[in-house]
Amino acid sequence: MCAQGRDFTAVVDPFIGCGAIEGGLSGNNYPGATVPFGMVQLSPDTHPVPDWYNASGYDYNDSTIYCFSHTRLSGTGASDLIDIGVFPTVTGKTSSGFSHDAETASPGYYSVMLKDEGILAELTATTRTGIHRYTFPADTATLIFDLDHSANKGSWGRQIIQSQLRRTGPRTIEGFRVITGWAKLRKVYFVAEFSEDIAGMDIADGAGTVFRDAAVANGKALKGTLRFRLPERQLTVKVGLSGTSVDNARRNLRAEAPHFDFDRYRASAKERWNDMLGRVEVTKGDPLDVRLFYTALYHTLVQPNTFSDISGHYATPAYSVATVPEGETQYTTFSLWDTYRGAHPLYTILYPEFDAAFVNSMLRHYRDYGYLPIWHLWGHDNYCMIGNHAIPVVVDAVLKGLPDIDPEEAYEAVRESSLRPHPNSPFDIWERYGYMPEPLQTQSVSITLEMAYDDWCVARLARHLGKTEDYERFSARAQYYRNLHDPATGFFRAKDEEGRWIEPFDPLRHGANGGFPFTEGNAWQYYWYVPHDVPGLIELTGGEKAFRKKLDTFFTLTDTSWEKNDNISGCIGQYAHGNEPSHHVAYLYNYAGEPQKTQDMVMRIMKTLYNDTSSGYAGNDDCGEMSAWYVFSALGFYPVNPASGRYDIGTPLFDEVVLHLPGGKDFTITADRKTGGAHRVSRVTLDGKPVADYRLPHEAIVRGGEMRFSLK
Amino acid sequence: MCAQGRDFTAVVDPFIGCGAIEGGLSGNNYPGATVPFGMVQLSPDTHPVPDWYNASGYDYNDSTIYCFSHTRLSGTGASDLIDIGVFPTVTGKTSSGFSHDAETASPGYYSVMLKDEGILAELTATTRTGIHRYTFPADTATLIFDLDHSANKGSWGRQIIQSQLRRTGPRTIEGFRVITGWAKLRKVYFVAEFSEDIAGMDIADGAGTVFRDAAVANGKALKGTLRFRLPERQLTVKVGLSGTSVDNARRNLRAEAPHFDFDRYRASAKERWNDMLGRVEVTKGDPLDVRLFYTALYHTLVQPNTFSDISGHYATPAYSVATVPEGETQYTTFSLWDTYRGAHPLYTILYPEFDAAFVNSMLRHYRDYGYLPIWHLWGHDNYCMIGNHAIPVVVDAVLKGLPDIDPEEAYEAVRESSLRPHPNSPFDIWERYGYMPEPLQTQSVSITLEMAYDDWCVARLARHLGKTEDYERFSARAQYYRNLHDPATGFFRAKDEEGRWIEPFDPLRHGANGGFPFTEGNAWQYYWYVPHDVPGLIELTGGEKAFRKKLDTFFTLTDTSWEKNDNISGCIGQYAHGNEPSHHVAYLYNYAGEPQKTQDMVMRIMKTLYNDTSSGYAGNDDCGEMSAWYVFSALGFYPVNPASGRYDIGTPLFDEVVLHLPGGKDFTITADRKTGGAHRVSRVTLDGKPVADYRLPHEAIVRGGEMRFSLK
Repeated sequence: MCAQGRDFTAVVDPFIGCGAIEGGLSGNNYPGATVPFGMVQLSPDTHPVPDWYNASGYDYNDSTIYCFSHTRLSGTGASDLIDIGVFPTVTGKTSSGFSHDAETASPGYYSVMLKDEGILAELTATTRTGIHRYTFPADTATLIFDLDHSANKGSWGRQIIQSQLRRTGPRTIEGFRVITGWAKLRKVYFVAEFSEDIAGMDIADGAGTVFRDAAVANGKALKGTLRFRLPERQLTVKVGLSGTSVDNARRNLRAEAPHFDFDRYRASAKERWNDMLGRVEVTKGDPLDVRLFYTALYHTLVQPNTFSDISGHYATPAYSVATVPEGETQYTTFSLWDTYRGAHPLYTILYPEFDAAFVNSMLRHYRDYGYLPIWHLWGHDNYCMIGNHAIPVVVDAVLKGLPDIDPEEAYEAVRESSLRPHPNSPFDIWERYGYMPEPLQTQSVSITLEMAYDDWCVARLARHLGKTEDYERFSARAQYYRNLHDPATGFFRAKDEEGRWIEPFDPLRHGANGGFPFTEGNAWQYYWYVPHDVPGLIELTGGEKAFRKKLDTFFTLTDTSWEKNDNISGCIGQYAHGNEPSHHVAYLYNYAGEPQKTQDMVMRIMKTLYNDTSSGYAGNDDCGEMSAWYVFSALGFYPVNPASGRYDIGTPLFDEVVLHLPGGKDFTITADRKTGGAHRVSRVTLDGKPVADYRLPHEAIVRGGEMRFSLK
Repeated sequence: MCAQGRDFTAVVDPFIGCGAIEGGLSGNNYPGATVPFGMVQLSPDTHPVPDWYNASGYDYNDSTIYCFSHTRLSGTGASDLIDIGVFPTVTGKTSSGFSHDAETASPGYYSVMLKDEGILAELTATTRTGIHRYTFPADTATLIFDLDHSANKGSWGRQIIQSQLRRTGPRTIEGFRVITGWAKLRKVYFVAEFSEDIAGMDIADGAGTVFRDAAVANGKALKGTLRFRLPERQLTVKVGLSGTSVDNARRNLRAEAPHFDFDRYRASAKERWNDMLGRVEVTKGDPLDVRLFYTALYHTLVQPNTFSDISGHYATPAYSVATVPEGETQYTTFSLWDTYRGAHPLYTILYPEFDAAFVNSMLRHYRDYGYLPIWHLWGHDNYCMIGNHAIPVVVDAVLKGLPDIDPEEAYEAVRESSLRPHPNSPFDIWERYGYMPEPLQTQSVSITLEMAYDDWCVARLARHLGKTEDYERFSARAQYYRNLHDPATGFFRAKDEEGRWIEPFDPLRHGANGGFPFTEGNAWQYYWYVPHDVPGLIELTGGEKAFRKKLDTFFTLTDTSWEKNDNISGCIGQYAHGNEPSHHVAYLYNYAGEPQKTQDMVMRIMKTLYNDTSSGYAGNDDCGEMSAWYVFSALGFYPVNPASGRYDIGTPLFDEVVLHLPGGKDFTITADRKTGGAHRVSRVTLDGKPVADYRLPHEAIVRGGEMRFSLK
């Protein structure tokens, strides 16, 4: 189903988003090697203890590499993973300078010259193994295997519970570490194979003891120093990972990395990327736009991450090991507050078989945990952010007919996740008050709005399955957003348990993640969060004209009486593209009779808030969500309501794009522009028929066909 | 093989050792319900946060019960386990007063009247389930399931990683907690079944939220409050445990506790105890001695603890789950620095099938961990104390021909555990210096002495298996003790790396657990630690006469210029029966021509340092080791060298004892006393033949026969 012959990896620049420059922001992306939805993200760590501001382990502004570690997150605000650091040296150094001149990256491949000693490091990956090739300037070398290297142990109570490193053959070592941090508990097992014999391994235990020529060591801060004699001055290293056992790490390694031909692994990774990236074929477009587009698409595909082994085993949130059915895969890294908006809807179009697997992974989590994940990290929920936005993902997948999802099981999961109280989801309060009273549940306005949306999703699936009583119950809850609308100020605002507005109220004041009614935003940004009932919101606002006026104000009001927090960035007036609550707002003009303003604003965001530098995002990429917005918008549409089964039409960035869809269907989007830069839609047709309402049904895309834009 | 018909449980008093009185010490035992080597120890917790001085959770001096929890340690100095607290209430209280007048305990059964509300609590157990029966003064009641209750979170960095509590049926709940503490990581799963319907369950998350009528909760400090309507005013609760999964907890529960008849479980537990206790039949003896004897024997049998599930699954030290072969069991709780001395040798005589299983459990640990355990707690090594005293246990078991142990595998384990450096076992230093230099390895004198002994054990097995080179290597290491003998002071003392004695030296000064050359003792107490080469020690001391004189001084020198630490107790001169390094010393007179002094001293220790109060031990029972010394000594012998295959004869406490041994063999020990209290041996015969050397070969016991003492 992909475009044969084209190399899409050539137009991906993995350095985009990897470091803030010129007062801009970092996307917290990383440039290292991974395959689509892989378990391994093998990438350089330019900070000895990655944390908030270098969460992926890499910052383009740095000039030192400390090691290459095997796992990480792309675009998150918080850091975690960062497992099994490997560093090559000839003289015993533990870090090296590097420069971007001698550094390259493309999907599935990264290389850098470690200039202190002149060691060329090259990285590639399979799904569950990292492949390293080091070329040394000498015929003896040392490799450090650092099991202590991790994200900052000062954050999230992070501590290594225990680790092990052992030599198991002339060319193999294995081990694990168990660590608690942002993910409550992670077991990371590995087996490493070397292309040459290990001449010896010393292990430092981090507590002052070095075990010389050790066969095995157990401890909390292990660092192995492996010596090699290298007549060819080159060493290839394969590191298989598993979240369940050393045996499974070995099986993963043997299944995915049976040989030592680095270039074959690299070619294979490239092929897999072309297979995925090629499902969208931009046939006519500006080269810069094309580069931004495919890099964004790439960033949507580096997570969620494979979590189960080749054997099907995976670590459950009940701290046991379970097995997925034959042929299935368990995934993790679901940053759902972000990705339910654009990334998952995008997957339903381009990668539906994967989205179905993501949904089934969430359903398995539900079975063990009792409710769906909020932020799923290495198999555990870290409860980051608010709402229960696995619900729109699950409902959307079922209603779009994605394969192999049991609708009744999916329904049970979304229903129970909406009834069983859990952190930030006190459903007893919800139904008692019809809103979240701030004194009982902080972030109450944001939660009320987002929860009402999730309830609408549950209601929609209930109706689909003929569950009338539930449909009515959840439909009623979906309207609770109205209970926090204050006609006097014209905003959603917080109430106490008695139903009294909480004073003082300032719609410009921002909250962060608790202690305030708004989450990572203010009343202006949250005003628009009724994606399931925009007409209702328009009515509350006083009709279309008032709604348009309020939108205009939103995009122009630049008062900064309250200091912005880190999450408020990429601003156009009060619009903050750097964080997700704003993401659908530009498309709301469509609903109020001013689609051209949607087109203007979307084009402005695409053109001014994305660029091809390391600071190319207006904020954290958030596991590909910032990227997904760009991919959708560039195609010419975006889902204001991600579980509605339809997309809201904006303005296409390219003159011709072909989506190569499952089942051999193609969906083509073309743009006839009156002038070169024209972006205002004068007419849009679907398979020749005019589209009057600026809405594109999912069904119209997946059955294949053509959408033609006339732009002036 | 047991004595039919007699109820040995009637002469066990589980309160012995449960609390310090009158300036004495607590054995840190507990009075609750368990079965031999069970996974569950269901017992009252009289302290809200058990720690060092109430390590088992119970102190006889307390008057409040906070809950009944399912796991604990017997006689340790440090606290851990203490899982899943259950507390019954009618009015909502969270603790209750109690008095010993309304408290009873016998092996496998405990009951107490919770006097605040008049609730009768009764406890019994199967191997993997705790059975509770509560009789209430009202027909509605509440049960608190406390997943937060644990040993002190201020010790060992203890913290709950995560826990879960869920309702799974009208009469069932289940859940788990994952906790790090003295054991690096423990996963404790449970399934509980109630004899009546649950009317409702609220769950407090410990962070200020109560989930009302909850189906499930996940959190770090969960407390479930279950409401019941009880027309019969009685509730029976069965709680199945597992260290691997909720499924296995359910299987354990269903296999071991299929019904709700509390009395049948109690009778079954009693039968199992009689089966075990009855392997020793004291047919003539003073009632107090008999009570002390069977209580001591009981205390040797409450650990090691079953760790694998009915299914054979167990949690490995590599944080995975493995399976024991069909019919086998994995055990944990190996306090080896203590129990290799007396408890394991006792098991080799009376319970060889269990000791073989203990050894195989250690060998499995070795496979995953790379060396044998030092202190094995819930499947993990906590490295408590020094030496590698799994080695004498393994070697002794192989050489005594215990069933189903692979000698070559056992040899590999003891050899590698003696070559692979690990904490407190820097074997590279060992062979480089021929002793532990204190600046490189603290506790150097104690480690040097104990390691030399372990090496002797390895050498002995090497010789047995025809490994001549290894035999010579380890035999040489076994003599390293000599390198720290200082003829000038007449003591073993610490050297630096240059071989210089470290000054100042005071043989009375005590060390604790690091920072000093002696471990929980002084140079006087460690002087005698050459169990494998007493003749060599006698020679170093200057001959038998000098040796006798030194022993006499040891047992009389009461200088206390250095403050004793907690481990030095039960003193007779410098002899400190409250801790293990002294335990063999009374038997050393045998080696120097004064067996009557052994007899005098052993009888004095039995008669003055054990009693039937809650303060009946001279120090921590140390997982039954203080008890094992008593059991052996009361029988009339004790293993100075626990892996030598022979026992050193002291003086029998009873007039007739029959050991009912595997294979239907009986070994009878009789005493003809000239006068009532006579304890000096004038003659001892084995199967009619005089024993001249006061040595009893293991083989003579297990083949059955008779040992007759004539005492004057």
